[in-house]
Amino acid sequence: MTFYTFSEQQLRDFTERVFLTMGCPQVDAQLAADVLLRSDLRGIDSHGVARLSGYVRLWEKERINATPTVKVVHETATTATVDGDGGLGLVVAPFAMKVAIEKAKTYGSGWVAVKNSNHFGIAGYHALLAVEQDMIGISMTNASPLVAPTYANERLLGTNPMCYAFPAGQYPPVVVDMATAAAANGKLEIAQRANQAIPEGWVQDKDGHTATDPHELKKGGSLLPLGSDKDHGSHKGYGLSATVDILSAVLSGANYGPWVPPFVAFLEPPTDPVGAGIGHFFGAMRVDGFRPAQDFKDHLDNWITRFKSAATVDPEKKVIIPGEPEYAFENERKKNGIPLIDAVVNDLNELALKLGIAGLS
Amino acid sequence: MTFYTFSEQQLRDFTERVFLTMGCPQVDAQLAADVLLRSDLRGIDSHGVARLSGYVRLWEKERINATPTVKVVHETATTATVDGDGGLGLVVAPFAMKVAIEKAKTYGSGWVAVKNSNHFGIAGYHALLAVEQDMIGISMTNASPLVAPTYANERLLGTNPMCYAFPAGQYPPVVVDMATAAAANGKLEIAQRANQAIPEGWVQDKDGHTATDPHELKKGGSLLPLGSDKDHGSHKGYGLSATVDILSAVLSGANYGPWVPPFVAFLEPPTDPVGAGIGHFFGAMRVDGFRPAQDFKDHLDNWITRFKSAATVDPEKKVIIPGEPEYAFENERKKNGIPLIDAVVNDLNELALKLGIAGLS
Repeated sequence: MTFYTFSEQQLRDFTERVFLTMGCPQVDAQLAADVLLRSDLRGIDSHGVARLSGYVRLWEKERINATPTVKVVHETATTATVDGDGGLGLVVAPFAMKVAIEKAKTYGSGWVAVKNSNHFGIAGYHALLAVEQDMIGISMTNASPLVAPTYANERLLGTNPMCYAFPAGQYPPVVVDMATAAAANGKLEIAQRANQAIPEGWVQDKDGHTATDPHELKKGGSLLPLGSDKDHGSHKGYGLSATVDILSAVLSGANYGPWVPPFVAFLEPPTDPVGAGIGHFFGAMRVDGFRPAQDFKDHLDNWITRFKSAATVDPEKKVIIPGEPEYAFENERKKNGIPLIDAVVNDLNELALKLGIAGLS
Repeated sequence: MTFYTFSEQQLRDFTERVFLTMGCPQVDAQLAADVLLRSDLRGIDSHGVARLSGYVRLWEKERINATPTVKVVHETATTATVDGDGGLGLVVAPFAMKVAIEKAKTYGSGWVAVKNSNHFGIAGYHALLAVEQDMIGISMTNASPLVAPTYANERLLGTNPMCYAFPAGQYPPVVVDMATAAAANGKLEIAQRANQAIPEGWVQDKDGHTATDPHELKKGGSLLPLGSDKDHGSHKGYGLSATVDILSAVLSGANYGPWVPPFVAFLEPPTDPVGAGIGHFFGAMRVDGFRPAQDFKDHLDNWITRFKSAATVDPEKKVIIPGEPEYAFENERKKNGIPLIDAVVNDLNELALKLGIAGLS
């Protein structure tokens, strides 16, 4: 595997060109590029520019609308439903989070469900928009069905991530950003490329038996919920994934469960949709709606200091604060650039060729 | 093991007598009994009357205030912090949830953090108060430190449960009510009584190694977060538990992490508290703040129907809807009574003797 390193600006310019060529307005192209770049900067390589050609393929199939009219279609003082009009989730999600933040400024909290959207990138991006305003940010989304609930031999849920982000004082924000499956699909893809066995508990095969072959998912198997099996609490991972699905889609009017349209363009969406597009859910709560913001930050700093200094099983390892590794990546990659594996670079250059724009070099 | 079966009313009367003898006002005694009985009715035997003598022992040590002045000490239109004045969590929590519900009636949503409280029973009780109003209910609490975060060899977090409850139409509510540890302490206690080995991944011993001896927790070991080990996503269980801790305590001004006072009276609280008592967090959102309530219920019914009819690995087993088993228990036990094991009956009768009230017979 060969890596090529690009500056943030190179990749940002390229990504914007792609979205502009799709017909996105300038402001949307910039925003969508910002979401993808933030993922690469934070070391979440699976959700950044590596997905760019996937978004384009969905647009080519007219499953992404490059010029959506995103709007609030239902609301109270602190709740709203947003219709994404089939737009990029990368654009629709920040719009919705901003609605939540504005409501929180006036009333203390804001909550927005979204329908008729598409893949929104990393959940952390959106939650962190609230953190910048001294708010607690919450974001989640449903996703293409890959996960079998406890006892099931069907893929009924996505890896449905949830994110909670909290502003600290002297430390970077605490960002819990996690798929509700035992292992994210990205980890599986790494094992597939390396042709390496995966731990038991990530995947079941088409007959519902635990599998260690990373290719089983492509042979009719399923990912398993966080907890892996009933004895280890897979019903909890299933319950969390169900919560994300209900808040994101049953509440908003999007598709849920097995009806969620696939992200990959070569799979067709179900012909009997129960809603519109995929769904998200966002929340913002003012910290000073509960106690003075500085008090909260001081105590969160104390929490972090205590956990970072905990006794560990292996003296070489530290307890990791959620969001700490991503923050370290962000600082390092802003300075030293973003490494992409050759397969991704080739894919992006083929995309450039197809769209008739300048590639990466 | 012998079971004795009591009617709901017998246990309710007994429980009320105990709380009245502690000095609780009539209305509080009734409410606290209702929370405990709901747990027994719903089949969550570990959180019902089996804990009654534990509450009394804390009261005897003056760590529970039987006549608290529970009040809102900070608020915006949709957020509030409640000071529980050291009262029973069984009383403080419903007070706080009602504040959230009232705010939601006016503004669409309400969010309440609680400090200076004690063990609040089952999270589901409180979340279901919102469901009765066609709202989505959310409840969580921190708890005595028993769980080691990923890589840690210290107990820094409680089993910190979170609950999300949703009103359905023809079906009972969907109630996701789960500890964020791989296995709740109650399951461990069952294995301890039976002297049976537990699955790897529930507990680590005092040196941080996976253990199958259910007694390791009492020998300096720790419970493990949901996910069990890093490979299977224990950092996610740790992240969820951290989220509950931060929302419940860092936000409210309660004790967090290793400073949370123990529920058991024979362990003293830390001498260097960072807040007041233990903390909870509650939320209520009007379903019709997002879409007409009937639309939501119809689609949630459709979700449930689809999941209940999913293909399963074992044809004898069905996919279980979160909250379904508890609802079945509740119907059955309301009719046929609540079975208690002899150890619990003896404990309650000793309690009655000590307090000079009529026992169970």
